Amino acid sequence: MAKKGKMNYFTPDEVSKMSIEDLAKQQVIYGIEDKPPLGESILLGIQHYLTMFGATFIIPILTASAVGFDGVDTARLISLMFFVSGLTTILQTTWGNKLPIVQGGTFSFLPPMFVITGTVIANGGTSNLAMQQLTGAIIAASFFEIIIGFTGLIGEIRRVLGPITIAPTIALIGLALYAIGFDWLMQDWRIGIVTLLAMIIYSQFLRAKNRVFLLFPVLLAIITGYAFAWILTLSNVVVEGDAGYVSTQILKNSPWIAVPKPFMWGAPKFTTSFIIGMLAGYAASMIESVGDYMAAARLSGAPTPTKKVISRGIGMEGVGCLVAGIFGTGNGTTSYSENIGAIGLTKVGSRYVIQIAAIVMMILGVFGKFGGFFAGMPTAVVGAMYCALFGMIAAVGMSNLQFVDLNSSRNLFIIGFAFFMGLSVPFWANTVSVDPTLPLWQKTLEDILLTLAKTGMAVAAICAGTLDNLVPGTREERGLIAWHDVMEG
Amino acid sequence: MAKKGKMNYFTPDEVSKMSIEDLAKQQVIYGIEDKPPLGESILLGIQHYLTMFGATFIIPILTASAVGFDGVDTARLISLMFFVSGLTTILQTTWGNKLPIVQGGTFSFLPPMFVITGTVIANGGTSNLAMQQLTGAIIAASFFEIIIGFTGLIGEIRRVLGPITIAPTIALIGLALYAIGFDWLMQDWRIGIVTLLAMIIYSQFLRAKNRVFLLFPVLLAIITGYAFAWILTLSNVVVEGDAGYVSTQILKNSPWIAVPKPFMWGAPKFTTSFIIGMLAGYAASMIESVGDYMAAARLSGAPTPTKKVISRGIGMEGVGCLVAGIFGTGNGTTSYSENIGAIGLTKVGSRYVIQIAAIVMMILGVFGKFGGFFAGMPTAVVGAMYCALFGMIAAVGMSNLQFVDLNSSRNLFIIGFAFFMGLSVPFWANTVSVDPTLPLWQKTLEDILLTLAKTGMAVAAICAGTLDNLVPGTREERGLIAWHDVMEG
Repeated sequence: MAKKGKMNYFTPDEVSKMSIEDLAKQQVIYGIEDKPPLGESILLGIQHYLTMFGATFIIPILTASAVGFDGVDTARLISLMFFVSGLTTILQTTWGNKLPIVQGGTFSFLPPMFVITGTVIANGGTSNLAMQQLTGAIIAASFFEIIIGFTGLIGEIRRVLGPITIAPTIALIGLALYAIGFDWLMQDWRIGIVTLLAMIIYSQFLRAKNRVFLLFPVLLAIITGYAFAWILTLSNVVVEGDAGYVSTQILKNSPWIAVPKPFMWGAPKFTTSFIIGMLAGYAASMIESVGDYMAAARLSGAPTPTKKVISRGIGMEGVGCLVAGIFGTGNGTTSYSENIGAIGLTKVGSRYVIQIAAIVMMILGVFGKFGGFFAGMPTAVVGAMYCALFGMIAAVGMSNLQFVDLNSSRNLFIIGFAFFMGLSVPFWANTVSVDPTLPLWQKTLEDILLTLAKTGMAVAAICAGTLDNLVPGTREERGLIAWHDVMEG
Repeated sequence: MAKKGKMNYFTPDEVSKMSIEDLAKQQVIYGIEDKPPLGESILLGIQHYLTMFGATFIIPILTASAVGFDGVDTARLISLMFFVSGLTTILQTTWGNKLPIVQGGTFSFLPPMFVITGTVIANGGTSNLAMQQLTGAIIAASFFEIIIGFTGLIGEIRRVLGPITIAPTIALIGLALYAIGFDWLMQDWRIGIVTLLAMIIYSQFLRAKNRVFLLFPVLLAIITGYAFAWILTLSNVVVEGDAGYVSTQILKNSPWIAVPKPFMWGAPKFTTSFIIGMLAGYAASMIESVGDYMAAARLSGAPTPTKKVISRGIGMEGVGCLVAGIFGTGNGTTSYSENIGAIGLTKVGSRYVIQIAAIVMMILGVFGKFGGFFAGMPTAVVGAMYCALFGMIAAVGMSNLQFVDLNSSRNLFIIGFAFFMGLSVPFWANTVSVDPTLPLWQKTLEDILLTLAKTGMAVAAICAGTLDNLVPGTREERGLIAWHDVMEG
């Protein structure tokens, strides 16, 4: 039977006295307020950096290709992204929600990004003009999130959120990314399978045997996969052009130092429909973030985020997006699900470690060579990492179902409907497009709806949140009593 | 907190004495051994017929288009499918596993079907030759399932199946079909949304108010959606060529009576690689069926299927596939997840009702006009039904997680990994194809692996089953103790 209750966590002193067997059994090794020794913290911080590397790297790559950037500007955009992620992580962990959450670029901004840049380029605009329009939309719309956050409006949402809503919403953050898991791993199946097996063996079989596997399964698996790819490259088993080829070209071309400066691509331009279109990205990002706060708090042994914590967190994410806009990353910042997955795998939920990770990100964002070094990491390694991490997020979401009566057909209907629609609606949404000849208001409205429909966790949140609050059911059946007891009590 | 324990069920007498409010609260209204009054049973049986109509209709449509059949042969194939479904349902419920499960065509045979028919047609074969090769493969491979079943080999599998394996396996049966839910509903969004809203309102809001909504939410929602489509057609809001158009042409062209006869498309032809390729479809179908038996037993208040019940059920499914092959449906028979979803929605798990449904299927399979009548049902109505039913299957799968320790990171890793891979691997598998110039043994092997990789529930079962049995974990943590207590105790 599932055990109920708050997770335990331990001080560094207690941890050092525990046996490996005891450690492996614990829910959390370092809790939110713990400060592991500096050396260990730096290694753990680098692991978080590596965990977020894949998504943080792919977002500027996608943005750069959408606006048609050359190699030099692409590299600059990548470095920018890491620098801003570090900066906004410091803001969030110090003055925001103070949870152990890494801030980074968000996939939910990609659909409006593609719409905005696509429109500018199709009308004969330059790459820089596309970035200026994109930046303008991000900056203007960031005030929406800042206001919703700091006024406490977002906190009101929490009153209608129970485990039946939270479970599919968090789960869909991971499940909805099924297209970039195994498909990326199979870009080079040898490297992908080696990385995935390493991840499974380190995190599931060796963690009770040796402390290094308990703490660094993700980092070690990435190193294993990357080293294997390097061996294949050096021994000419894979050659240039192959997906598994480790290129040193990006490393050579990267500058040693590249200090970011504001409005790098020119002064931002503001267009109403672009700004409103971008709001859908913000809305999805906010819904996702509230789910992330819950997951991060659960995994790090912190109490369930209060209305105040959520408000401050969302407000600060808005500030982060404003900062990202000013520096011109072409994306916003949001809480990073990958790193929450890493907390689940490593059981290290220390805020201090995240802050160390943020400093690593800022430093490595300025020293261009480091970005260039990791930019050579084959996609297969990233894909293998995603198969484990996104699955972990899905399971963390489902773990909220332990509070719910799973023999109630009311609950089963709502939960299943939300999960299915969270996958089925985006599948449909990705096959349609908005008629560009529609009147502006209607096109804008349809753009917004379509952007939401493409976002699985938003669909799941809307389906489950609406039905759980409307369909008759007792508070006990819905799991609200057990959930609030455990999460807050 | 989630209630644990076997579901209650009631005799018809008890049911008739209960208030609507009490009924709505019960887990099962009619249990597996109950016989509702004949009139009610016929209506409930027709509801099951309608529930399985969508998939039973689409499989022969897909097969007919793959081999290039004309309208007349397509109609024959549809009628055949219904007749054989009814016949094999009688076999299964009377001499097989005796669970309230409708037998029907299986999506898991579609990938090998496309491979076989595609190869024959590409080599200049006729439609009938393609059907003969397909039929030969189905007949030959059916002995694999018959042997695995009746020798009890399949029962051995159950020993290594715990709730951590069953949960993602059943859930993926529903979730993996995300492509044919909302996308079909949106073929005509007005009709789709009306049908979906009807389904939600009838099954979730009105069931406690009126008995007819308690028992027939699916049937009533289909009638509502179909009637609405008919109104739109009669009032010329939708016209011929629109997706929501209700065509009476199929009805006019269908014969009154069409008695099926064996080997309708000619004597079967046997080709080794086709037979082995078809085995992958059988393997996936068997794994799915074991999950279905568990789900059906849970929903109908029957004890967990024993080794003997599973063996007899799988053996009889093999016999059903042999029968389907002899009659030439171009597909096999398997347990029908849609109808298990319907049991969850209606809470009617009576075997007698399923047998009535089987007789309805056989009669309507012979009277061609009935098939023609329902063949006119717009896709949007079917899609809306799927959004509710496939979600229900997903949730029934997840409900097995109530026995598992959801705070164990071992369990979360395995569960999440299985769910994610169950979606991510098929996504990849659908983008690749086997090199036809490979040596036959290698091509056949890759065909088999690819067919399995395309089947989400097979991937989930393999991932979860392997890891749950290999990664260290206590029997209590894995939920084996609680699960066996509740499911068998």
